[in-house]
Amino acid sequence: MKNMIDIVQSVILNETGEAVVILDQTLLPTQKVYQTLKTPEDVWEAIYHLKVRGAPAIGIAAAYGAYLGAKQSGASTSAELYAAFGRVKDYLGSSRPTAVNLFWALERLEKRLVTEMKATADVGQLVAALKEEAEAIRLEDEQVCETIGTYALSLLKPGDGILTHCNAGTIATAKYGTALAPIYLGQQQGYQFKVYADETRPLLQGARLTAWELSEAGIDVTLICDNMASIVMSEGKVQAVLVGCDRVAANGDTANKIGTSGVAILAQHYGIPFYVCAPTSTIDLSCQTGKDIVIEERDATEITTKWYEEPMAPANVKTYNPAFDVTDHRLITAIITEKGILRPDFAEGLQSVMNQSEAKL
Amino acid sequence: MKNMIDIVQSVILNETGEAVVILDQTLLPTQKVYQTLKTPEDVWEAIYHLKVRGAPAIGIAAAYGAYLGAKQSGASTSAELYAAFGRVKDYLGSSRPTAVNLFWALERLEKRLVTEMKATADVGQLVAALKEEAEAIRLEDEQVCETIGTYALSLLKPGDGILTHCNAGTIATAKYGTALAPIYLGQQQGYQFKVYADETRPLLQGARLTAWELSEAGIDVTLICDNMASIVMSEGKVQAVLVGCDRVAANGDTANKIGTSGVAILAQHYGIPFYVCAPTSTIDLSCQTGKDIVIEERDATEITTKWYEEPMAPANVKTYNPAFDVTDHRLITAIITEKGILRPDFAEGLQSVMNQSEAKL
Repeated sequence: MKNMIDIVQSVILNETGEAVVILDQTLLPTQKVYQTLKTPEDVWEAIYHLKVRGAPAIGIAAAYGAYLGAKQSGASTSAELYAAFGRVKDYLGSSRPTAVNLFWALERLEKRLVTEMKATADVGQLVAALKEEAEAIRLEDEQVCETIGTYALSLLKPGDGILTHCNAGTIATAKYGTALAPIYLGQQQGYQFKVYADETRPLLQGARLTAWELSEAGIDVTLICDNMASIVMSEGKVQAVLVGCDRVAANGDTANKIGTSGVAILAQHYGIPFYVCAPTSTIDLSCQTGKDIVIEERDATEITTKWYEEPMAPANVKTYNPAFDVTDHRLITAIITEKGILRPDFAEGLQSVMNQSEAKL
Repeated sequence: MKNMIDIVQSVILNETGEAVVILDQTLLPTQKVYQTLKTPEDVWEAIYHLKVRGAPAIGIAAAYGAYLGAKQSGASTSAELYAAFGRVKDYLGSSRPTAVNLFWALERLEKRLVTEMKATADVGQLVAALKEEAEAIRLEDEQVCETIGTYALSLLKPGDGILTHCNAGTIATAKYGTALAPIYLGQQQGYQFKVYADETRPLLQGARLTAWELSEAGIDVTLICDNMASIVMSEGKVQAVLVGCDRVAANGDTANKIGTSGVAILAQHYGIPFYVCAPTSTIDLSCQTGKDIVIEERDATEITTKWYEEPMAPANVKTYNPAFDVTDHRLITAIITEKGILRPDFAEGLQSVMNQSEAKL
């Protein structure tokens, strides 16, 4: 049987290596449209307009875009190629300047180019190395997600009800996602999970993206409003909560989409394990605790009017619209990384996995 | 200074006693339109189309409608009047058959009519008695709300941040509301509360109604998405949670708008008192616990498409849409009734206030 998750691909290079193919996330859930991006300009536009979203997916798209730019530069010497790469790198870096993975991916390609230039001046070989590095970024992300999924799956039982918040799924990454990875891997093994997806106000990533990608993959998913998590848990329908994260502090405090901390408190109240799926790339030991994590506040119209036919709140009503919140580490049952499952007290485990990551570099 | 709350009136009889004037809640928050209802048919239509909502407000509107029907019946004898009243009672009762207060109000008018008919056969006097009874229903509701507000206010301090869920405000009652009553009474005394209104998905009563009526009254209100209650509490912005309720069981378990139980769990986690404002009319000793309260499930489109320009969830996605949830009595700091403030263990207190109510009848 074809693996249902293969139906959805966020970002890939096409078979000839001439173009990037992305799933346009701005058209979800009503239309599933793959767009072919043939130039760095196409890639820039796709990132800028959020057609590609999710930090790992953005990094992959940018890497492919930089490769395309080098390939199409017409450079006849390695020096010309290096200059052309620098221009496309700066250009793509301007598409979404706050996305850390974007710069990380572009820097990684540049390092590879510099390394290869020490061994060869052949433009064709250098372009091939850039393509290889971009592909490696995607494949490594897929591997990280799959490993997180395997670890997380070991904590779950067939038939479990799983509640998730926001979208930490396949379309935000190369494949599998983080929080949704064990759900896809479990499906391959007949786990028959029942997933409850919080709609995730104000931007509705749960309704538009998580409910969509799980439905596409044939997984049993039920969409609920955020304020229904309590009743679903009280009715015994949830055996585990799985969420992704944006940043993990040194003590295990975790920043993730607004509402995550509330879900964690409910889970503790009802005695349900709360798992954070965190690639080591999201662990930030320079933040001692969640208090060091700055929370982005976003525009009022996201609450008052976005997607509505008419205003659903009084004109000029005061709003508070934080995009993220911090979940206290004491509410987290385990943090699941690609290096293994961390249990409280998290400080030591986080330090240890980061030491491993650094040792490998 | 004019009391700001007087700007908003949900349902009143006009000065000549010839018509009912209602605030059309279906046009909120974009338009504040008062509609004059001259016939029982007008009243029926207003209740049916939810222009009047909130159990107490519906009961008041129905009482006025029945009075108008009797007055306009052209009856020349008390027997003709009684027959006409019976017809209009049945007619108005069909406008929203699940609303308990609707039947309660109509029954009360009928009892009054029967009592008066023992003393007089004068049609004019009988119609006047119906008018008096309808007015009494409204005034008593206002009194109940004001008393609840006074008790609740005694639990609050000037400058407190108050979080509320759904709409238990002046427009759902004759005046003041239940959960919002202490906020209005406090405003008259310069309390300067800062109110956080959960938007209350899926039907957004918090955004459309609570944020609107508090803004209209000049009260400092901040609209948040339901999943932001946790961060607002964690930041020390909330000193008390005030909610209304639909039904209180004999042990204090309380059914209220979906999401209320989650707010109560968050409040307990952050050490914030959680107060339920409950007219004794909502106490149902025939329910032993919350398990005896049946939760209404509503249509999926409320989650997936209502108010949106286009679907915000995949077509045919499975949803779960309970309209209410039950808050465990152990999460409730106090239940505030018009007979006084009840503290845990609630069972004895609830029995006592109901005995008082029955003793008074």
